[in-house]
Amino acid sequence: MRIALGVEYNGSPYCGWQYQDDADSVQAQVEAALSRVADHKVTAICAGRTDRGVHAVSQIIHIDVHVERSMRAWVLGGNVNLPRDIGILWAQPVSEQFHARFSARARHYRYLILNRMVRPGLLHHRVTWEHHPLEVELMQTGANYLLGTHDFTSYRAVGCQAKNPIRTVHYLTIRRQQELIVVEIGANGFLHHMVRNIVGVLLKIGRQECPPEWANTVLLAKNRTAGGMTAPAHGLYFYGVDYDAPFHFPRPPVILPVL
Amino acid sequence: MRIALGVEYNGSPYCGWQYQDDADSVQAQVEAALSRVADHKVTAICAGRTDRGVHAVSQIIHIDVHVERSMRAWVLGGNVNLPRDIGILWAQPVSEQFHARFSARARHYRYLILNRMVRPGLLHHRVTWEHHPLEVELMQTGANYLLGTHDFTSYRAVGCQAKNPIRTVHYLTIRRQQELIVVEIGANGFLHHMVRNIVGVLLKIGRQECPPEWANTVLLAKNRTAGGMTAPAHGLYFYGVDYDAPFHFPRPPVILPVL
Repeated sequence: MRIALGVEYNGSPYCGWQYQDDADSVQAQVEAALSRVADHKVTAICAGRTDRGVHAVSQIIHIDVHVERSMRAWVLGGNVNLPRDIGILWAQPVSEQFHARFSARARHYRYLILNRMVRPGLLHHRVTWEHHPLEVELMQTGANYLLGTHDFTSYRAVGCQAKNPIRTVHYLTIRRQQELIVVEIGANGFLHHMVRNIVGVLLKIGRQECPPEWANTVLLAKNRTAGGMTAPAHGLYFYGVDYDAPFHFPRPPVILPVL
Repeated sequence: MRIALGVEYNGSPYCGWQYQDDADSVQAQVEAALSRVADHKVTAICAGRTDRGVHAVSQIIHIDVHVERSMRAWVLGGNVNLPRDIGILWAQPVSEQFHARFSARARHYRYLILNRMVRPGLLHHRVTWEHHPLEVELMQTGANYLLGTHDFTSYRAVGCQAKNPIRTVHYLTIRRQQELIVVEIGANGFLHHMVRNIVGVLLKIGRQECPPEWANTVLLAKNRTAGGMTAPAHGLYFYGVDYDAPFHFPRPPVILPVL
């Protein structure tokens, strides 16, 4: 029996989603907690593997289990056994046709930038700090070059293992709420470090070190060395996943940890 | 020379604002950091002493120093020497007439309640969790009884040391933003645990365990034992202070944890 679950986490204390022998991963914690509910070893497959320090508002996973439990038992039992900074949001039975990663039609990320003179205290590890005043309109102009279907070789990590560097960006908007700049991005899929590399380029544009057209110059170079720095992990939030019907899950909550 | 400073902090790892011999306080951290900038021992007086686990968006403090430093040096030097979850927001020279605590004309708090079936993960220690659906309109009706000038004996901690239990509540509003309920309160001053005790009563009203009028019944009893539970510390944020002219400081950021 296959079950889909929504999972949220503060990524700061973890080495990322994926299991590692020598470090504490979100995957290891989730699998341990759900294995205790199932009374057998459970493997969790996620929609989008997040790196060290990256948070999730609504990661989607699936597990295969050999026992009958109520959906409530998976949620509450999972949460009882998880550390306080990882939570199961919901659980839903799905057919074997569903795969958290391969069935995903679109993924959504949010990136938070605290744009002010002084470093974050209350929001330490929850936002990326940029003390140069950022010009959001220039960032948006640059971002618009990345909309649609492109070869994102310049925006992926050198070690990215995806066979195909072509992705379709559905939306990429930058807006300011007082001291906070929120980058919203959705695509059919993301290459390794793609959001953080895009934000790295947009930061340079926002600081007026490069014109907005530079986002396009980088894109057309199809060469990672043409790009900017990789923006820090702790400003990045995995925000949600879309699946084709009949897999309609609860929408991610629209709350982010910013006061 | 007297200097006023704005300070923000995540209260979770600290025993509260106030110095304690056997625990790590925000005050001890702030004094140690600013003493290093001053090259002499500095004592920090705050506008509102926060309890263990209570956060601050904009605490106001003052210090007396015997050295000349730029305001930039107090901010940047202080931040370099502080733990990452405490930050100096600004610094401003003030006359000896200014006192962070005694000159305060009004104080503002915010209280965040995550109202959903499952416990917070991403927002662990940043919000209070309430899984019973809360009726915000009933909470507001109850809150309205507390507006204005009253004897708040029923809403203060038994051990509260204030001589006078009369306070004037300027506003008390409860609003829902999706899963999050935000309580906003401002008063000329607050008794010990006053906000948390008010929220404790409002939670009972929101769960429909008591009618809105109960907030008034508790108030008129002038007896702490008539009240509700003290709501948890980690949902509480010290939000800002008002001073009379000529002490006008930067306004706290108005970023809320909702996207």
